[in-house]
Amino acid sequence: MLTRVKSAVANFMGGMMAGGSNGDHPGGSDMPLKYPYSRPEFLGLSPDEIECSADHIARPILILKETKRLPWSTGYAEVINAGKSTLNEDQACCEVLVVKRRPAGSSTPNRTPLTHLTLHYWALFDGHAGSGVAVAASRLLHHHIALHLQEVTEILCTPNLLPPTCLGEEPINHHLTPTSQRAPGSPSTPPTRFFTEKKVSHESLVIGAIENAFKDMDVQIEKEKAVYNISGGCTALVVVYLLGKLYVGNAGDSRAIIIRAGEVIPMSTEFTPESERRRLQFLAYMQPHLLGNEFTHLEFPRRVQRKEVGKRMLYRDFTMAGWAYKTIEDDDLKFPLIYGEGKKARVLATIGVTRGLGDHNLKVHDSNIYIKPFLSCCPEVKAYPLAQYEHEADDVLVLGTDGLWDVLSNQEVAEAVTCFLANCDPDDQHRYTMAAQDLVMRARGVLKDRGWRISNDRLGSGDDISVYIIPLMYGNKQN
Amino acid sequence: MLTRVKSAVANFMGGMMAGGSNGDHPGGSDMPLKYPYSRPEFLGLSPDEIECSADHIARPILILKETKRLPWSTGYAEVINAGKSTLNEDQACCEVLVVKRRPAGSSTPNRTPLTHLTLHYWALFDGHAGSGVAVAASRLLHHHIALHLQEVTEILCTPNLLPPTCLGEEPINHHLTPTSQRAPGSPSTPPTRFFTEKKVSHESLVIGAIENAFKDMDVQIEKEKAVYNISGGCTALVVVYLLGKLYVGNAGDSRAIIIRAGEVIPMSTEFTPESERRRLQFLAYMQPHLLGNEFTHLEFPRRVQRKEVGKRMLYRDFTMAGWAYKTIEDDDLKFPLIYGEGKKARVLATIGVTRGLGDHNLKVHDSNIYIKPFLSCCPEVKAYPLAQYEHEADDVLVLGTDGLWDVLSNQEVAEAVTCFLANCDPDDQHRYTMAAQDLVMRARGVLKDRGWRISNDRLGSGDDISVYIIPLMYGNKQN
Repeated sequence: MLTRVKSAVANFMGGMMAGGSNGDHPGGSDMPLKYPYSRPEFLGLSPDEIECSADHIARPILILKETKRLPWSTGYAEVINAGKSTLNEDQACCEVLVVKRRPAGSSTPNRTPLTHLTLHYWALFDGHAGSGVAVAASRLLHHHIALHLQEVTEILCTPNLLPPTCLGEEPINHHLTPTSQRAPGSPSTPPTRFFTEKKVSHESLVIGAIENAFKDMDVQIEKEKAVYNISGGCTALVVVYLLGKLYVGNAGDSRAIIIRAGEVIPMSTEFTPESERRRLQFLAYMQPHLLGNEFTHLEFPRRVQRKEVGKRMLYRDFTMAGWAYKTIEDDDLKFPLIYGEGKKARVLATIGVTRGLGDHNLKVHDSNIYIKPFLSCCPEVKAYPLAQYEHEADDVLVLGTDGLWDVLSNQEVAEAVTCFLANCDPDDQHRYTMAAQDLVMRARGVLKDRGWRISNDRLGSGDDISVYIIPLMYGNKQN
Repeated sequence: MLTRVKSAVANFMGGMMAGGSNGDHPGGSDMPLKYPYSRPEFLGLSPDEIECSADHIARPILILKETKRLPWSTGYAEVINAGKSTLNEDQACCEVLVVKRRPAGSSTPNRTPLTHLTLHYWALFDGHAGSGVAVAASRLLHHHIALHLQEVTEILCTPNLLPPTCLGEEPINHHLTPTSQRAPGSPSTPPTRFFTEKKVSHESLVIGAIENAFKDMDVQIEKEKAVYNISGGCTALVVVYLLGKLYVGNAGDSRAIIIRAGEVIPMSTEFTPESERRRLQFLAYMQPHLLGNEFTHLEFPRRVQRKEVGKRMLYRDFTMAGWAYKTIEDDDLKFPLIYGEGKKARVLATIGVTRGLGDHNLKVHDSNIYIKPFLSCCPEVKAYPLAQYEHEADDVLVLGTDGLWDVLSNQEVAEAVTCFLANCDPDDQHRYTMAAQDLVMRARGVLKDRGWRISNDRLGSGDDISVYIIPLMYGNKQN
């Protein structure tokens, strides 16, 4: 991901364990380090092993040890980049959390058989311009999610009741006649309601909890950045399993797919300057001061030259999916808000990903223009009704950072995983980690003539690569 | 559509032929009428027939006469509402236009075999708060489209050339080696280019032309509204057939579907307060003055009551697809920007459709808050490569205003049309109009116990209903 940020020479005077650069905050290195560099806790690496893993020449693939086990026998593998950044800026977290009903403040009558929720959680964070924010998010985001779920635990534990619009109100029973059709004053008549009232599902509450947890995480990072050295920013891809459903929340350009009976079901979309062009152009159009008089919100197929003023050139604005010609004016000579194509596309000539956490201090090089207003910390959350399907041992959810997907298509990943698992002993709990290792190997490739090469002599990924393979059959047995 | 606008008692002092109300512009009726009420030109109705068609009790279904023929043997039928508005506020237009290469100003060397384009055009407009804007759009929008296509006619007529980024530049040939790989100074070397240059397709140029034509149409309406009596606003659904492709542009809640071998292919999406909630909330969040201190950008499942201040209530903002609880503050007592569900959802308690033309003077009842900033005149344009498929006689594109789709699903429409056409003489040119009539009949229903009823005793549509059925096989033979 570092290459996606124009920033900056890494600032590693303190040595590799000092916690990463702080390219976006020149004064940062004077402040105390709160989230020192590390690898995912579940890998159980010693400081020596961590240091050895950061070998940009050998690029050893780290996998979950056979002695460790993640929930659902989840597989995990990772590899460091080929030299883009000193450290592996990807981070990961996997936890099982128990969320208890909030002890006080709940005023709904006690009618819940369950008093707690069990939450399975997997997450990938892809850092840029330092590893501080990615490490912080890997340690904290799940706690924010748990905190938001705590408020609605009691509601979620009572499957037949719709969430009350206002806490303390009598909740509405799914199976009752609508209020408007019941006789007023009859024994079961709840307090009078307005005529129209939206019904909100349990699923919507979980989605709202994940959305707001991302926002709180970002606010916490902003506050802590003021007093600690927490470098850079990161994307975030999280999976929450709760009450029979998987929720996949994504802010950035990592990706999740389900492979079911060999078929691919995309579970996330990527947020990049190209996919979010119209949102960003709309914002810049409405708040032009954010462009600091140096950028234009219009898009052109290439930079406009001064000699072209007065000519007709292709452009598009936030209202357009197509292109049209306009007469070039002086204002169009400014640098475009969105520039470049594919992996090289950038916002404000700086960043190649448009959602994620952190980056509060990131500015356009040599200017006073902040990037953060254009970045969103809000994830898109997709729900998958896991318990509604019978899953086989080879049905999996694959999570990967962009290092994986830059070189392998969904279809290639599905074929590789399906083929690999088919050749494993079905009773081997370690098979999903082996499959993850195989995927990372296929995306990294082998070193040949000074370059990393994968099948068909294509270029391998020089980026950090991290992969989870989560078998879905274990969800069948959970509640 | 009138019911979707809170506005206003219709103002028909001048009689039914006076051109409709001007509910959104009290001073409007003093100004001269520019676009008097009428029915689509291709129906060839006399003034008497037009007057008779506006019978809210009998609701006669008007169809294309057997003596008239629309391009591609297109079928058409319509019916007036059940009394919601005095006039039928739907309008329609169908034309074949020849777009000639712009006579002057083109500086690309003359290498085109074709010097003109033939454009097929079908459109539906669903007016509200008067018929003026719908009539104006039905007379003018295709000319705006033609004007925008004129600028790119020469490019579109040369299939192997990519559109030049800047007019006057040497265009790039699809089949040549990229510039960067050719020897400099070789005879065919075009002028030096920047390293990255986006390739823009011909299809994108047509989409851009349609998008900008909608914007120009809306600007023209705004200007003319200042000096003429042009009432209300309208949705717009247009179909353009050009060089083997169909382009469906939609701004509003009309709908287009293709029925191919009995299967439904949706060709448009509807723009309503619910489908555009996040865009509208984002705008209001960034420009709170547009809410005039009377509305809140937050959404709640129902109105908040004063006694609920301090309690926790469900809400969502522009960042959220899910719902969460927040503590109610005084500010939350304001009326929500988006309120109501389904067909009853409204923006600023006023309008139920969020894209279209006109409405420049529309305000929230008894306030100084304008609706227009929240409305978009920009269509979503979808392209369909008609010439790539062999179409049978029963493969059709169905266009309908919301009066049709409110009571019939895509599937019901597909079954009705497929079944109807199967029972027609395949050589009968009038069969598509008969099928359109059948659809309108199915959506209107029959008058029973003072109400309009359709199959299974469901309620029929009391709205204006207009339907095109366009056979696709004729596209096979066009260029």
